[in-house]
Amino acid sequence: MTKPLIPTITAFRTSPDRGRGLARDMRVRWALEEVGQPYDVRLLSFSEMKESAHRRLHPFGQIPTYEEGDLALFESGAIVLHIAERHAGLLSDDANARARAIAWMFAALNTVETPIVERSMATLLERDKSWYGDRLAMLDQRVCARLSELSDRLGDNEWLDGAFSAADLLMVTVLRRLDGSGLVERYPNVSAYVARGEARPAYKRAFDAQLAVFTANASPG
Amino acid sequence: MTKPLIPTITAFRTSPDRGRGLARDMRVRWALEEVGQPYDVRLLSFSEMKESAHRRLHPFGQIPTYEEGDLALFESGAIVLHIAERHAGLLSDDANARARAIAWMFAALNTVETPIVERSMATLLERDKSWYGDRLAMLDQRVCARLSELSDRLGDNEWLDGAFSAADLLMVTVLRRLDGSGLVERYPNVSAYVARGEARPAYKRAFDAQLAVFTANASPG
Repeated sequence: MTKPLIPTITAFRTSPDRGRGLARDMRVRWALEEVGQPYDVRLLSFSEMKESAHRRLHPFGQIPTYEEGDLALFESGAIVLHIAERHAGLLSDDANARARAIAWMFAALNTVETPIVERSMATLLERDKSWYGDRLAMLDQRVCARLSELSDRLGDNEWLDGAFSAADLLMVTVLRRLDGSGLVERYPNVSAYVARGEARPAYKRAFDAQLAVFTANASPG
Repeated sequence: MTKPLIPTITAFRTSPDRGRGLARDMRVRWALEEVGQPYDVRLLSFSEMKESAHRRLHPFGQIPTYEEGDLALFESGAIVLHIAERHAGLLSDDANARARAIAWMFAALNTVETPIVERSMATLLERDKSWYGDRLAMLDQRVCARLSELSDRLGDNEWLDGAFSAADLLMVTVLRRLDGSGLVERYPNVSAYVARGEARPAYKRAFDAQLAVFTANASPG
């Protein structure tokens, strides 16, 4: 038996969300907490993220990354899948259920998150443009189309497909990016689903860990 | 030995790209051709995609889907990963190389495709808006930031990480969505990379198959 390796992830030293758990390291922290795997964190400033040392780990200069022995990964979805494949608790042992959970992982990041990120980018980059109000209405419509479809499929189920899985973990973090928009609240079963995710002890430990980083490193005032 | 199952995928009866191979069934066809797996195709009209019979397979009413025995999947990335895991040729046998390829699969669909889809949506939905020119310039900048980072990482390599993999298959299909924009051509190594993908015999067979569907079903004139 070789000694188990403690993975190292990267995260923002001062997250732009001010510790609300919306940065993508939250997904990886939550997955590691669900499976009970301890981890180390290396914090990066915005300029360090764009330096060549970090770009060797992440070609697009973002967080999180994941290092474990001689393996280095980037992309939060891939890292969560890697953790889920190597530990019990985030993917079913049944091959078909596992494949369906992976389909929902891709759906969370590609089909549901895409219009949500487009909306976030508009609120960040286009707030001062003359077209902002008109575009935001269009984007809200596109986000709500996805939320409505998700709500229809979810129905009264607790999770997306049977037991809690890595798919729910990603979907909940994606939906949380709409915090403050009031859009998720239009779909009570989706809103309750997000709350169920946030109530998990592993979620809370991950949330507290990322908030502690922000609190320790933010300039006062 | 049980008889191997022939999977069935879904595709547009008349693709909005008029057979240019930009619809997401192309990814699945290409993967199946690379591994030599025959498949059946069920064609759908736009209204059939939104009916409840199809939504049972695909909660968001899109194509492609993938049915194999009692397994039903959606999301092109998940379907390509499923095929790559069950056949030789699209993922390395080395565990670390395999995990890195999966990271690039997520990167193709989440980090590179996201601004490309946002740009495509703008060209489709905002062409008649007063803000279109200003936004297109912003979006071109964001797409080019990603292309530049991809170009830096790719360098003189033939593929993203060692041998051709499911990651290259997805990345090439993502980059092809910029066809006609002139943006990929600003990065000659990225442009050559796309051309290498398109030159693969399996790509050509998949392309011809989807074009034949369009040609057979498009109204004349």
